Parts: sequence; C-alpha cells; structure tokens
Amino acid sequence: MTAFGFQIDETDLGTSARCGRWTTPHGEVQTPAFMPVGTLATVKGLMPDQLREVGVQMLLGNTYHLALRPGAEVVAELGGLHSFMGWNGPILTDSGGFQVFSLARLTRIDDRQVVFRSHIDGNLFELSPEEAVRIQELLGADCIMCLDECPPHDAPAERLREAVDRTTLWAARSREAQRRDDQALFGIVQGGTDRGLRERSAEGLLRLDFPGYAVGGLSVGEESEAMYRTLDWTVPLLPADRPRYLMGVGRPIDLIEAVLRGIDLFDCVMPTRNGRNAMAFTSTGPMRLRNARFQRDERPLDADCHCPTCRQFSRGYLRHLFVSGEMLGPILLSLHNIAYYQTLLADLRTAIRQNRAREFHAAYLC
Amino acid sequence: MTAFGFQIDETDLGTSARCGRWTTPHGEVQTPAFMPVGTLATVKGLMPDQLREVGVQMLLGNTYHLALRPGAEVVAELGGLHSFMGWNGPILTDSGGFQVFSLARLTRIDDRQVVFRSHIDGNLFELSPEEAVRIQELLGADCIMCLDECPPHDAPAERLREAVDRTTLWAARSREAQRRDDQALFGIVQGGTDRGLRERSAEGLLRLDFPGYAVGGLSVGEESEAMYRTLDWTVPLLPADRPRYLMGVGRPIDLIEAVLRGIDLFDCVMPTRNGRNAMAFTSTGPMRLRNARFQRDERPLDADCHCPTCRQFSRGYLRHLFVSGEMLGPILLSLHNIAYYQTLLADLRTAIRQNRAREFHAAYLC
Repeated sequence: MTAFGFQIDETDLGTSARCGRWTTPHGEVQTPAFMPVGTLATVKGLMPDQLREVGVQMLLGNTYHLALRPGAEVVAELGGLHSFMGWNGPILTDSGGFQVFSLARLTRIDDRQVVFRSHIDGNLFELSPEEAVRIQELLGADCIMCLDECPPHDAPAERLREAVDRTTLWAARSREAQRRDDQALFGIVQGGTDRGLRERSAEGLLRLDFPGYAVGGLSVGEESEAMYRTLDWTVPLLPADRPRYLMGVGRPIDLIEAVLRGIDLFDCVMPTRNGRNAMAFTSTGPMRLRNARFQRDERPLDADCHCPTCRQFSRGYLRHLFVSGEMLGPILLSLHNIAYYQTLLADLRTAIRQNRAREFHAAYLC
Repeated sequence: MTAFGFQIDETDLGTSARCGRWTTPHGEVQTPAFMPVGTLATVKGLMPDQLREVGVQMLLGNTYHLALRPGAEVVAELGGLHSFMGWNGPILTDSGGFQVFSLARLTRIDDRQVVFRSHIDGNLFELSPEEAVRIQELLGADCIMCLDECPPHDAPAERLREAVDRTTLWAARSREAQRRDDQALFGIVQGGTDRGLRERSAEGLLRLDFPGYAVGGLSVGEESEAMYRTLDWTVPLLPADRPRYLMGVGRPIDLIEAVLRGIDLFDCVMPTRNGRNAMAFTSTGPMRLRNARFQRDERPLDADCHCPTCRQFSRGYLRHLFVSGEMLGPILLSLHNIAYYQTLLADLRTAIRQNRAREFHAAYLC
C-alpha cells in the first residue's frame, strides 16, 4: 500500500472542511475532489483529454455495469480499466452493490451473497464480497469498494440494522479477499439516517482499519436536512487522517455542505445526466437550454466560465443543437457542467486554504 | 470577389488531376479537398478543434436544414454560420435544391419556384433561386450554390432536359440576385448521365461566367461506371482555371477516380454516417466494429492512422462502446473516418505533385 498517501495541508478554522492531497498509483488528487461518472468506462460523450482540460483529476467506473458489459475479464485482457478507457489518471470503482439493489431485479440475499437478474437481459448473477473484490482487481482501479447492502432509505429499522451488520461482515471478508496491494480498499458506512446505526456501522468498520472510508446510503430519497444531519453524526466517527468519500452526492449545494462537514471525495451523474437533458449549471443558477427565450441569445452559458463550451458557443447555438436533436448539445453541456463542478471544488479548496469555507457557503446561497 | 483566388500549382502528367490552392475570405484550401458535412451547423458529435486536428480545411452546411432550423435570420443574428458553429475556416453551403427534391414532400415546381412541405412538420415552404441566394447570404458561407433542379437519375430524357434548362434559367437569376461580393457563387451542371444534356448544361452555365462550377446529379443511384463516364465528358467542359466541385460524392474510390478526372472539391456524409453506424474506413478495408471478433482485440483500428481514436483506443474498447450504445462510439469512429478521408486527400495531393496519381489509384485498388 506504499503507493498511497493522504496528506492534509489545511483545515478550515470555522468548519470541518479540509484541503489535502491524496496520492494514488496514477497520480495525486487535490481534495476535496469531484469524480465524474464513467459508468461503462466512458464519461458519456467526452474524450479523456476534454475531461483533463476542464480540471478532472479522477474518474469513477461502475463495477456492476462493467461486469455485465464487456465483463471484467475482457477489460483485464485489454490492459485494465485505465488503458481500456484511455484515462491514465486515478480511477475509483464502486462495488456494484448500489446498482444490484437499485437497478437489477433482486432474487435472493443472504450472508453469503446476493443473487440478481441483469437489467439488460434478465440473466442470473451472483455477487459475493469476494467476487466483488475479484472483479475490481481485474478492472484495476486505484481505489475499490467493499460490497455493501443498500436497503431503501425508508426501510424499517430492523432491516437497516441487518444491512449494517451484513455490510460489516462483508467488509471483513472483502479485506481478506484482497490480493493486490496497489489498490486502496474502502469500507462503506451504512445505517440510513439513524444515528445509532451509523455509529454501529462505523465502529465495526474502524476495527478493520481501512485506508479510507465511504459514506453510503445517502442521497437515496431522504430530505437534504436528514442527509446533512447524518453527516454531522457520521463524519466525526471516521479517522481524520484518511480520505472520506460521500457516495453518489450530488447537487452543488450538497457538495459544499458535505465539504464543510469534512468530506473529501464525491461522485455523481448529475453534471452529465443533466447536461444530456439540456440543463446547465451556471453561476447565476440552472439554465434549461430548450427554452425559446435562448433562441437569439448570443451570450455564452456563463460569462464567468472558461470551459471550451463557453469560450466558443452561444446559448442560441446550444438551444439549436438540443431542439434539432444534435449529439453536440449533450456533449457541450456535459463538458460545461463538469467544468462547473471542477471549478466549484477548486474554489472551495482555495476558500479552505484561506479559512473562508463558511463565507464561501454563505455566498453560494445568495 | 477579390477575396477569392484559385491557383493551380501542379497538374499530373498522366491524368487530369491537379493540385491547387483556393483562397477564400476564411483562409486557403489545398485542393483536391474533402469537406465533411455539418448539416445543421455541426458535424455530428464533433467539436471544431477536433476537426482541425485531423486536417479538415473546409466544411459544408445544408441550406435546406438550416433554413428550417433554426432559420437563416437566427443564424445571421447570431453572427453568421462561422461564428454560430465556432468554425472560422472556409464553409460552403448548398442551395437546398437537393434536399427539396430528395427529402421534402414536393408539392409544385415551375420556372418561378419550387413549393414543398418540410420533412419535420409538414409546413409549406417556397424556394426560388432568389430566395436560395438570400438565405445563403444570411448564412454567410464563403462559397454558395445556385438553386438547381435535381430529378431522379432514372427520370425520362424529356424530364432531365427540362431540369437542365430550368437549372440554367435559375442560375442566371441567382447571379442577378447576388448582393454580397464576399461569397463565391457556383453554377451546378446537371444532365444525369446523358452526354448531350451535360454539354447543354455546361454551355448554358459557362455563359454566366461563374467563379467555380459544381457537378450535380451524380451518386444518386447510377452505376459507378456511369458516374465516371459522365465525369469523363463533363469535367473537360469546365474552365481549367476555376474550382470544380463534385457534389455529394462519396466513396474513397470515387474520390480518387474523380480527382484523376480533374475534380477539386468533394463533400459527403459517408465518413460520419458510416462512423455512427460502427463502420470504420481503414487502410486494410472497411471494419464493422460491432463484430464479436473485435471483443478482445487490443490493436487500434488502423495501425497506419495517427488520429486521436487510433492513438488512444483499441478495437475492443470501440466495440464495447457500440455494443453498449455509448455516444463515444459514434464520436470516435466519425473522427477516425474524417481523418481517413483527410489523409487520403493529402496523400493524393502529394501523389499529384510527384506525377504519381495513376500509381496512387492502382495501389489503392490492390
């Protein structure tokens, strides 16, 4: 595990926000950082050099999707995920657990494994903690995740508790199953929005001494306030000297709120999914590019943005692309939205270094 | 018309191929040249800088499509086609005639104008030669086309002759209608595969002294040999000191055959349309990337190609993108195919300069 290191450079005086550098076998990540999602080994519509140009440091790939298509063995034969998708920076893969519980047709779950049917062709698959590690070792990301159980956020307390205990059991077996020493394996804290369960989960995982910890089971339908409250309880339980990753979150304001509570890493499909649906994040609020009022608007999306989209194209042109169903519309808005997220995190890092995290948060809300 | 100039640098000794430089208000074009098609002010899925990177000099836009969406007035208000689509190199627009006759529902045609229903919403439109010029002046391309009548290739002789005469009449009126002096207006020779009609068409247009001539009505379903024979008859009728543009052609071999007969300019959707459909042009022949035999193939599409696709990605990855329905597949194959066409034309220009055009043709057929 010598290829990894996590160095905290600054801690904000007024909040729990921190600024750090996470070293991985494929380079350093300035934290807090946002990872765009490359579900099937591609951030939809974008080339790796375009991602780099707008400041992307690290990507996320989805183990569930890649295991079904093209299969982990195929990725391994083609040189592993980095080489396969032409991204030589750091990559993180999830365990597949979240998709198994949200996307696939669940057939059976017990302590041994989860059995499900593929959302593509209905074929039956089994996923155990050991198998999730094996697949992720074949994919070869820098950071990999323990298989966790992700019950719905409104599941009864007994069911949430069962999921916490199974997640802890599976985390121990994942640790045992790990063979490669050039991948950081993270445990995932579950427990919904229940303080006691979050404490129980963190306690069980801390005993296993992971090089980093993820917070799962949030941004799954609960209120924002419930998520922030859960982070208030959960983050302080996690070791301050290891990276903390909030999975699948989310909206720009959620990122800021979580950074102020001590989170270092994020991923979410929002910038790309919204971009494909003609919604742009801008410094003056969201913009829906199909709107007729943009037809003759010669201004860029966002006068404050330096991304290739804003440097070259007008709102009128972007609207035309979406109204005409042209591929370039989703491409240009995905790129802009990723640039928006990267700039947001870079500005947040600067604010933390200057002990202005609280002011940054207040200014964002204005 | 001072912004334009056409300089022939080399003429191949064994064929009618020639190598030239065409000066336009937005820069010089090395001829023979291939223009990728940006129908709706976008080469589908590609950014202008990606096109420049693979050697594209000039683009084509479709007047019919742009007049319907977003409308020529909107493009003009947003700064004209160059600014609108972020391409500051030369652009050519067609007259809309070909699409009116192939894509729209034709309602009425007489000497005054053609009346048709839009293929998008069925709305009724009228297009006269004067209106086609007016629209193209609003779009603002460097090179614009006279409205022509394009009957089916198997139309009866009388119908073809009528189309030739109407095309000549319309060419004269287009010349009269032109107001801007910074756009080169080309006449279009029609006449199907009939030698007499091609002569009649060329004769009528030559009297109007256009700064360049297009050959229309080919690659519309006739046999290759009929197209080549028609070029044998037609190209020598056109002034040697002006650019000659073969519209909508085509396959790589067609480009080579036409260059050997003295053609300077081409456009065709083939590299991009085929690319979107998982077909790649390579130095060893066409490749269908959905084919299962590429699943574990770690080689680039074409070992001889230096495009971004071939520099970064394997056939196995490209197949995965198409099988998974990922946007990046069409993007990467479109880019490669355009690079293939640009390299083909660049190699042809080199061969002409070395009086090896005939050998180049022979080598391509092997």
